[in-house]
Amino acid sequence: MGIHAYFRSLNELERIIRCPGKFKFEEHSVSAHSWKVVQYAKTLADIEETHGVAVDWKKLYEITSSHDYGEIFIGDIKTPVKHSSIELRQLIQQVEEGMIEHFIEEHIPEEFKGIFRRQLREGKDGSVEGLILEVADKMDQVYEAFAELQRGNIEKEFVTMYRQALIKIKQIKLHCVNYFLTSILPDMVNEGSMSKVNIKQITEEALAY
Amino acid sequence: MGIHAYFRSLNELERIIRCPGKFKFEEHSVSAHSWKVVQYAKTLADIEETHGVAVDWKKLYEITSSHDYGEIFIGDIKTPVKHSSIELRQLIQQVEEGMIEHFIEEHIPEEFKGIFRRQLREGKDGSVEGLILEVADKMDQVYEAFAELQRGNIEKEFVTMYRQALIKIKQIKLHCVNYFLTSILPDMVNEGSMSKVNIKQITEEALAY
Amino acid sequence: MGIHAYFRSLNELERIIRCPGKFKFEEHSVSAHSWKVVQYAKTLADIEETHGVAVDWKKLYEITSSHDYGEIFIGDIKTPVKHSSIELRQLIQQVEEGMIEHFIEEHIPEEFKGIFRRQLREGKDGSVEGLILEVADKMDQVYEAFAELQRGNIEKEFVTMYRQALIKIKQIKLHCVNYFLTSILPDMVNEGSMSKVNIKQITEEALAY
Amino acid sequence: MGIHAYFRSLNELERIIRCPGKFKFEEHSVSAHSWKVVQYAKTLADIEETHGVAVDWKKLYEITSSHDYGEIFIGDIKTPVKHSSIELRQLIQQVEEGMIEHFIEEHIPEEFKGIFRRQLREGKDGSVEGLILEVADKMDQVYEAFAELQRGNIEKEFVTMYRQALIKIKQIKLHCVNYFLTSILPDMVNEGSMSKVNIKQITEEALAY
Amino acid sequence: MGIHAYFRSLNELERIIRCPGKFKFEEHSVSAHSWKVVQYAKTLADIEETHGVAVDWKKLYEITSSHDYGEIFIGDIKTPVKHSSIELRQLIQQVEEGMIEHFIEEHIPEEFKGIFRRQLREGKDGSVEGLILEVADKMDQVYEAFAELQRGNIEKEFVTMYRQALIKIKQIKLHCVNYFLTSILPDMVNEGSMSKVNIKQITEEALAY
Amino acid sequence: MGIHAYFRSLNELERIIRCPGKFKFEEHSVSAHSWKVVQYAKTLADIEETHGVAVDWKKLYEITSSHDYGEIFIGDIKTPVKHSSIELRQLIQQVEEGMIEHFIEEHIPEEFKGIFRRQLREGKDGSVEGLILEVADKMDQVYEAFAELQRGNIEKEFVTMYRQALIKIKQIKLHCVNYFLTSILPDMVNEGSMSKVNIKQITEEALAY
Repeated sequence: MGIHAYFRSLNELERIIRCPGKFKFEEHSVSAHSWKVVQYAKTLADIEETHGVAVDWKKLYEITSSHDYGEIFIGDIKTPVKHSSIELRQLIQQVEEGMIEHFIEEHIPEEFKGIFRRQLREGKDGSVEGLILEVADKMDQVYEAFAELQRGNIEKEFVTMYRQALIKIKQIKLHCVNYFLTSILPDMVNEGSMSKVNIKQITEEALAY
Repeated sequence: MGIHAYFRSLNELERIIRCPGKFKFEEHSVSAHSWKVVQYAKTLADIEETHGVAVDWKKLYEITSSHDYGEIFIGDIKTPVKHSSIELRQLIQQVEEGMIEHFIEEHIPEEFKGIFRRQLREGKDGSVEGLILEVADKMDQVYEAFAELQRGNIEKEFVTMYRQALIKIKQIKLHCVNYFLTSILPDMVNEGSMSKVNIKQITEEALAY
Repeated sequence: MGIHAYFRSLNELERIIRCPGKFKFEEHSVSAHSWKVVQYAKTLADIEETHGVAVDWKKLYEITSSHDYGEIFIGDIKTPVKHSSIELRQLIQQVEEGMIEHFIEEHIPEEFKGIFRRQLREGKDGSVEGLILEVADKMDQVYEAFAELQRGNIEKEFVTMYRQALIKIKQIKLHCVNYFLTSILPDMVNEGSMSKVNIKQITEEALAY
Repeated sequence: MGIHAYFRSLNELERIIRCPGKFKFEEHSVSAHSWKVVQYAKTLADIEETHGVAVDWKKLYEITSSHDYGEIFIGDIKTPVKHSSIELRQLIQQVEEGMIEHFIEEHIPEEFKGIFRRQLREGKDGSVEGLILEVADKMDQVYEAFAELQRGNIEKEFVTMYRQALIKIKQIKLHCVNYFLTSILPDMVNEGSMSKVNIKQITEEALAY
Repeated sequence: MGIHAYFRSLNELERIIRCPGKFKFEEHSVSAHSWKVVQYAKTLADIEETHGVAVDWKKLYEITSSHDYGEIFIGDIKTPVKHSSIELRQLIQQVEEGMIEHFIEEHIPEEFKGIFRRQLREGKDGSVEGLILEVADKMDQVYEAFAELQRGNIEKEFVTMYRQALIKIKQIKLHCVNYFLTSILPDMVNEGSMSKVNIKQITEEALAY
Repeated sequence: MGIHAYFRSLNELERIIRCPGKFKFEEHSVSAHSWKVVQYAKTLADIEETHGVAVDWKKLYEITSSHDYGEIFIGDIKTPVKHSSIELRQLIQQVEEGMIEHFIEEHIPEEFKGIFRRQLREGKDGSVEGLILEVADKMDQVYEAFAELQRGNIEKEFVTMYRQALIKIKQIKLHCVNYFLTSILPDMVNEGSMSKVNIKQITEEALAY
């Protein structure tokens, strides 16, 4: 019993591959994804601060770095499954939370239980930090899907992933979303691509959605 | 729309790795697992026939070769999750079946819909063929877990997997189970191992369970 | 001595990669290939039955699932080598059969020797089941080569493989061949591709061969 | 020019493997390492706060998440090289800082230049946050080396890495170091191992150094 | 037509894995093997020169660097197959030589044909250079098999490979063989190992064979 | 202490990947690269001999086969780093030579020290053999970069690598350079490609540089 169990378990997310099944030119582990989300979120929060928004950095640190920890217990269940019914989605989230609670009960010492419960909670609430996490998480889908399309991957899943992540981001009301859409995304799209898919057009349609 | 969609999708199971997260000396794809299950089942059925049991080879062929096809839709959800509540398990199976039905509706031509529905149904019923599938599926867990333990893998998950698969096999009333336990398993256990885990003792305890 | 030696050896085919040497965007193991052949053959046989042809499912099960088992002993000798002279081809087949017989003699218990000899025989005879196996085996070459060409692989070997497999399939007189050529292949070719190779034209030329 | 260049470059650290050359049962990317350091640092900082130490979470977030970003430019130069002479070490650090500065100049928009300069500076100063980063970075060496030794890796490099990381950690005066040495490390060492190396003894010697 | 075809083909040997099928902790490509053989042969020839033996360095260079080039055409046919009958072995060598000749005819410009024929001939003749190549080639089998056994690989194939390579080396009458057996091999054996296999004893038995 | 330490260390270059960080369709180890350089150099030297130039084959053998051995000690430091300042470059070379000397001192027996010092020296001097090594080393960069561009890799690094290697080769005054530029390179460029990059134009510009 002890925090060692938690630290040791982190390693498992290095072995879980995102988007299992689909052909990919490049595979990404959940831990590498998590690190990129941490980095995006940092810059997104910087942008918010520039606009005078107060950011709780401790909270942001906690929720971004741990946001996919639950995948250790439930693996990478495909998004369409998660969302096939509200009932199922709630049940899966319930199970995930139950297994995290079970892990904390079994391994985390009494004096840290509160801290770990707070850190491993679902972070995507309506707060600035929760919204930044949501944007950063979707941004990594945009980056991953774009890189596949750009190299000529013809799996339709990556068009869908790219498109839906953009639509989701666009709906979030933050200064950094505005910055992403006007100053970062265009640089990406202008990079050019091997793809017969018209990424530019998909991007424009998603933004006009 | 057409059977091409089915054949093309088979490839995805070559990219889904079994037992995600845990450290393994050797990884196994779901398609390689499925092929081994087909092979075990063939010999198990031969043994049943030797004892005068009638085997429906067409049914056995269908249910063994397709038994993990649903993982294309739901990915490899961890066993502890699946079984954490009866309600969740039923819901997940419901979703899986729903997605298979959806796939058949969308892609399989009218004249083959019946055939695909039969082939992609849950095969582990109480028939001889269903029981053989259950034994063959667990046998591959025994082989996979044993090979890891034998090479010195110290993850406890493989002890659990080995033990529970043996216990499950032992409970099935078939001639081939008897043959497996008395003529195949001892050869495996006597192969020796790098492990500090006492595989022989775990085996004996599981069989005495 | 025992069937364990056979089951254990199956694992080796998961580590033998098809088409060694050539650059591939995606590698395939012999065991994953074998499983896909099992699946294709199942549907091909369903189509034959639909046309009133009797199928011996036990035989089909046996010959499709074991059809590349001999590669454990001889590895993946390149097709051009195998066919460089009739004498060599016969000798290689002789050696392969000799090593399978040696394996059976050494490891398979007396009461199963007959069964294993029958299952591990060369399955591609002139029977319906043998022809279905031949079609299914070539179909996987079509799928593998197409996927490489589609992603922009410029190795000529994959054009040759795609073309020759199609020509071979076309020559086999089965209802399912007709179905494959008219209802499955067009869906594949119409998928589009990254390739500068004109897959459509190669397909038409092969079918007109 | 823009922040897109920075976000895009993050991906490169997923392809740089730590400790190149040496045989490893398990490889780790720089990005996965970075994410684990972020996680360790979070808990180490929690422990400091528990003891009444004030933690600047924004600074900690910035320096831990970016601490190995410079490896994009200089690759993973081996530690013995870096430390073979003070002169060389300073020159390498100078070059690394020069390339980071060059990157910021070329790609980061004017209004973010200050922020990126601060974030990508060398974080291991004498502050609480800098010391926590140093401990977290070494902790990951302890975890990586231990896992190799535990599985029976006989490369001496991992004994050296384990030993020197422990010695370095021990010298840092923080509450969390004390907690690591007395409450986390013993759980690790007591896990048992396949190794003929006496990890317990190496641990005791390093702590008594 | 041109030497480009030869240079381009070299790449294929980087994708052919030695000893296919068997479980290995570490895989080796044919090109990496070839490079190690080049290196061993260099030192072996140095040792011969030290004893006053004249070495034709141009010949040694040619035959060691190209000694496995033929595997591009025939793949890695397993040793037991090659040696299962003298007739088959001769036929396979005949085919390999035929395919190399065919390649030279088709691709190599007239003025280089003679050079390439000489370089791609079977190099293991009775000359000093041919014998050095034989020793260097077997030495790499000793190194590869030892490394697997040392890490606890329990595949019997590696015991056989280690043993037979040593026996073969011992039979070759060269000064460098003596040096290898008395000054290099003992350092290897004394390195210690994870193995339950008694490598020391196998070594002594092979040397006493 | 002994030559075993040298032979054992060769293996490490099989695990060091060239051009770390950048996305590649195909990875190359330093040992596979070294073997290809050995092969190119052999043919380049054949061409020189054809033009009546005397080649010291022993020297060529030594310097080509060992030319990247130093990467065992310093890893693959990126070219831009190496060349960012003359001072740094000299220091890095100094360190590399110091570590090689240290290795020889520690491991190589007295009677071989001279031989190893000569073999592991920097080989790219102004002699015919040194120039051939320089050409062969750059030729492999041309081959590696071309293969990536040809398959549609859009990383600019490979355009730069291809271009600069060609420019460097062109500046070396050897008969074989002339042959490479007029008889080998055109075959490569005429192979066609998936790339939107105009490889032909880049080639012509580099040759006209």
